[in-house]
Amino acid sequence: MPAAALIGVDWGTSSFRAFLLAASGAVLDQRFSPKGILTGEAGTFADVLASEIDGWLAPGRPLPVLMSGMIGSRQGWLEAPYVTTPASLTDLAAGLVDVPFEGASARLVPGIATAGETMRDVMRGEEMQVFGALEQLGVAEGRFLLPGTHSKWVHVEEGRVGSFRTYMTGEIYAATRQHTILGKLMEDGESPAAFLRGVREGAHAGTPGSLLNRFFGVRTAGLFGDLSGRELPDYLSGLLIGSEIADGLQQDSRPVHIIATTALADRYATAAQALGLLAERIDPACIARAYIAVTRAAGLVAEA
Amino acid sequence: MPAAALIGVDWGTSSFRAFLLAASGAVLDQRFSPKGILTGEAGTFADVLASEIDGWLAPGRPLPVLMSGMIGSRQGWLEAPYVTTPASLTDLAAGLVDVPFEGASARLVPGIATAGETMRDVMRGEEMQVFGALEQLGVAEGRFLLPGTHSKWVHVEEGRVGSFRTYMTGEIYAATRQHTILGKLMEDGESPAAFLRGVREGAHAGTPGSLLNRFFGVRTAGLFGDLSGRELPDYLSGLLIGSEIADGLQQDSRPVHIIATTALADRYATAAQALGLLAERIDPACIARAYIAVTRAAGLVAEA
Repeated sequence: MPAAALIGVDWGTSSFRAFLLAASGAVLDQRFSPKGILTGEAGTFADVLASEIDGWLAPGRPLPVLMSGMIGSRQGWLEAPYVTTPASLTDLAAGLVDVPFEGASARLVPGIATAGETMRDVMRGEEMQVFGALEQLGVAEGRFLLPGTHSKWVHVEEGRVGSFRTYMTGEIYAATRQHTILGKLMEDGESPAAFLRGVREGAHAGTPGSLLNRFFGVRTAGLFGDLSGRELPDYLSGLLIGSEIADGLQQDSRPVHIIATTALADRYATAAQALGLLAERIDPACIARAYIAVTRAAGLVAEA
Repeated sequence: MPAAALIGVDWGTSSFRAFLLAASGAVLDQRFSPKGILTGEAGTFADVLASEIDGWLAPGRPLPVLMSGMIGSRQGWLEAPYVTTPASLTDLAAGLVDVPFEGASARLVPGIATAGETMRDVMRGEEMQVFGALEQLGVAEGRFLLPGTHSKWVHVEEGRVGSFRTYMTGEIYAATRQHTILGKLMEDGESPAAFLRGVREGAHAGTPGSLLNRFFGVRTAGLFGDLSGRELPDYLSGLLIGSEIADGLQQDSRPVHIIATTALADRYATAAQALGLLAERIDPACIARAYIAVTRAAGLVAEA
């Protein structure tokens, strides 16, 4: 087994994932826990980290620890200021922020904020998945879609994250289903056909405000028995994902890479296909490669 | 005082309003209570009605009672089937549904559903405000905007309600403010300037899905201190109302009448002005005229 060279940690709002990595990028071991930053108390992050990576650090083996995600936000361990677009791996490496941790030098990876646009956008954590995907694909440009509560569409050119857009699709779905009249007619159930119908109707042309009208169509579809209570949740999901993908297509119709392996990613892939957007999937475990690359760019790991 | 000829009741989800009317349309008395259909138990509507209009019905004075709004829905007293567009006062009169009530003949006014469109739309109660406004203005055509949890834009031609669109603006505002990350940075407060900024940005061109991205701009505006926590609620409100009005304008740029006197109606009037849409206000008390007109069309009241 090759020697361990680095510990990479993807620490988000609701989950913690750590990788023990060789300088080659090989994953020697990994740990997962639901201890996201919102589940712990402030001031206890060092204890959580020490306990989760227990056994990886030994006396005389002071591996560098690199942490990305919401752990570097105002609600996290310490705020690592955003670097601004266009942002490269080298920019992330230059923006690393030290945090006090016994037994190793631990650093936070900064997030990225868009610069020079009237509507600002930000990411924390997704940038490492994007750079990991670039490393894995061996390319320096591309379009990446990261589905989630807040999904992100990221455009990379010449190895730099340029423009990107965040859509609150997942959270708007949950809020409208659980806290508006739309949920009243819904029952638990799945319907690929209702999902696809939603995707196509969500992609119809219209103004931004027409979405506020389109929501009401979910209610009337239920009211007139056009869709059953069990079909309505997927119809709503389709409407929102379809409208998001149509907006992404309108920005740029080139193929995208979807970085995710979740059921939600399946929905995005299905919807993309229905709307004529070429989409390939990448396993988000590619993030391990980004920890190595950033660490190397910071001059902290010897070349493999 | 002229003789009472009719009792009109506007009975919605969360409120009850009754008018004692002369054949001329003059309001002789009115009652208001928060006893909307969702606050009572099914089967008790007759008791609520009797108690709320206590004293108006006397032996030998069996006034007709006309009720509009959600009381005629599946969740109400009895379901009064929708009449379909294009729908006139005469169509409403032909669709009245009797309900058993001691001491008077009580009837439900049907709502209106759009016909022949892929996305159905419905209203219950608003149609009476629209017909009341037509009576008050002495016209047979116009565009009407009824702000509310679900706001409605109604187009009338030759005395008939034609196409109309419902926007879930108010409910989406409440759900996103209270149940998404957007509320996290918000504090109670008012800001006409932030509202107007939201209105203008909400009216920007874009696809329906761009609204899902625009929501996230509320978070980043707070994150970067571009807007304070006290300004964010009105900014979000402006974004949604602005995008709704821009969609209304795109459908048809002719002037509208806003039927409402609420603070929400003030917001819509301000936003309409900012976006170049001519808007005049009408007091929703005009609904009283519609009860008289429908009753007359049904042959139930002698001409004044």
